[in-house]
Amino acid sequence: MYALIGKLVTKAGQRDRLVAILSEAAREMEATSDCESYRVHVSLDEADTVFVYEVWRSEDAHAASLSLAEVKAYIDQAKPILERMERIAALELRS
Amino acid sequence: MYALIGKLVTKAGQRDRLVAILSEAAREMEATSDCESYRVHVSLDEADTVFVYEVWRSEDAHAASLSLAEVKAYIDQAKPILERMERIAALELRS
Repeated sequence: MYALIGKLVTKAGQRDRLVAILSEAAREMEATSDCESYRVHVSLDEADTVFVYEVWRSEDAHAASLSLAEVKAYIDQAKPILERMERIAALELRS
Repeated sequence: MYALIGKLVTKAGQRDRLVAILSEAAREMEATSDCESYRVHVSLDEADTVFVYEVWRSEDAHAASLSLAEVKAYIDQAKPILERMERIAALELRS
C-alpha cells in the first residue's frame, strides 16, 4: 500500500482551524475503500504545524482522490490559511 | 495520543533486513496495550531508507517501551546495519 507523510504550516494561529478541516476530510477519506488511513496530528515541537499520515490502496487511488469534488472543496478551504506545504515522504507500507 | 515519525537510513543493501527486524518489533509493540500503531515503510524516493510511524497511548508509554528487554534486543540487531537515524517529528494525534 501507498503511504504519504505531509507537513503543513499554517499562518499564525490557524493551526486548529486546519486540523478541523483535515479531520473532516479524514472522516470522508477513510469512508472510501481506497483510503486505509488518514491521520491528522499537530507537531509538539513546531508552532502552527500539522502533519498528515495517509495510507492508500495504491498511488493511483491517491491521485484519483485529488480530483474528487469534496477533496477539492477541502483544499480550497485550507489554502487561504496555509503558509506552506511540504511532502516529507512517499512510501510503500511494509507492515 | 503520542505519535512519532522516524527515518532510518541503512548501510547499502541492508534496507530489507532492517524492515524484517522492525516488522517483528511492530508485531510485538502492537500486541502491547500502550502501542496503538507501529508501521514500517520503505521510501519510494530514497535508497536504503525506512520510515516508521508509531502511535502510543502517551509519551511516557513510549519512553517506557525503550527500557523493555525485547525492544533493546531489536535495537541491538538494528544498530550494526544503520547508517543514521533521524526523528522527523513528535506529534499529538488529533484524528
